[in-house]
Amino acid sequence: MRAALCEAEQAAAMGEVPIGAVAVVGDAIIARAHNVREATHNPLGHAEILLIEQVSRTRQAWRLDDVTVVVTCEPCLMCVGAMLQARIPRVIYGCADPKAGACGSLYTAHNDPRLNHRIDAVSGVSADECGALLSVFFRARRG
Amino acid sequence: MRAALCEAEQAAAMGEVPIGAVAVVGDAIIARAHNVREATHNPLGHAEILLIEQVSRTRQAWRLDDVTVVVTCEPCLMCVGAMLQARIPRVIYGCADPKAGACGSLYTAHNDPRLNHRIDAVSGVSADECGALLSVFFRARRG
Repeated sequence: MRAALCEAEQAAAMGEVPIGAVAVVGDAIIARAHNVREATHNPLGHAEILLIEQVSRTRQAWRLDDVTVVVTCEPCLMCVGAMLQARIPRVIYGCADPKAGACGSLYTAHNDPRLNHRIDAVSGVSADECGALLSVFFRARRG
Repeated sequence: MRAALCEAEQAAAMGEVPIGAVAVVGDAIIARAHNVREATHNPLGHAEILLIEQVSRTRQAWRLDDVTVVVTCEPCLMCVGAMLQARIPRVIYGCADPKAGACGSLYTAHNDPRLNHRIDAVSGVSADECGALLSVFFRARRG
């Protein structure tokens, strides 16, 4: 989560919503990304999406069933959907997102027995620190 | 839907799950895409995602609030999530997807009052033809 927070800080420095993520296999970080929606004008520019793109491009494989996604904020529907498509087995996230979170807050899409894949989710890791980055960012933007 | 079906047929010819989509503004088709997951080894390679990427790249804008997505099959969670992120106002789709559809079948994520955007969905357009392409594809693959 330390590395994901560094990514989030880089996003903040660019004026992006400060959310960062890393892809982990075993003990190794194999990819890093942060939110870049504004800079790239890309509605898909969430950290998790960029991470999955990176790893699948590097491996030339769509099935990433040994990759853990570590992300500072609870993933949204798009990102959980992408992790389901990529067969990601596990997501570890920091703060919850009560407005759009899809791993427990608004939806439990990561663990829906009707779907063809389920993702193990661990929440609340460095949640205060992850949430503080977002609070500071939005407070500054509002005022 | 005719153009989206042509895209789906191109996907089938490449051995991809035959789903196609077009982006429409007013009376004009501004982008076309079909599923390319296998060819590109990309778990995000659904027609709707590629379409949104194309249009936002061309326009250098993440907010696509005048774009209607026309797609042969009901969008999954990832794709509805991406359309929500892009502020797509309207989706028109062909056949329902009872196993993964997120515009009415498994989820009604397109129209969730808790989220910050809602998408008008029209279903069942050329549904038989759209569904037949998928049935033929999966029947051939199984046998």
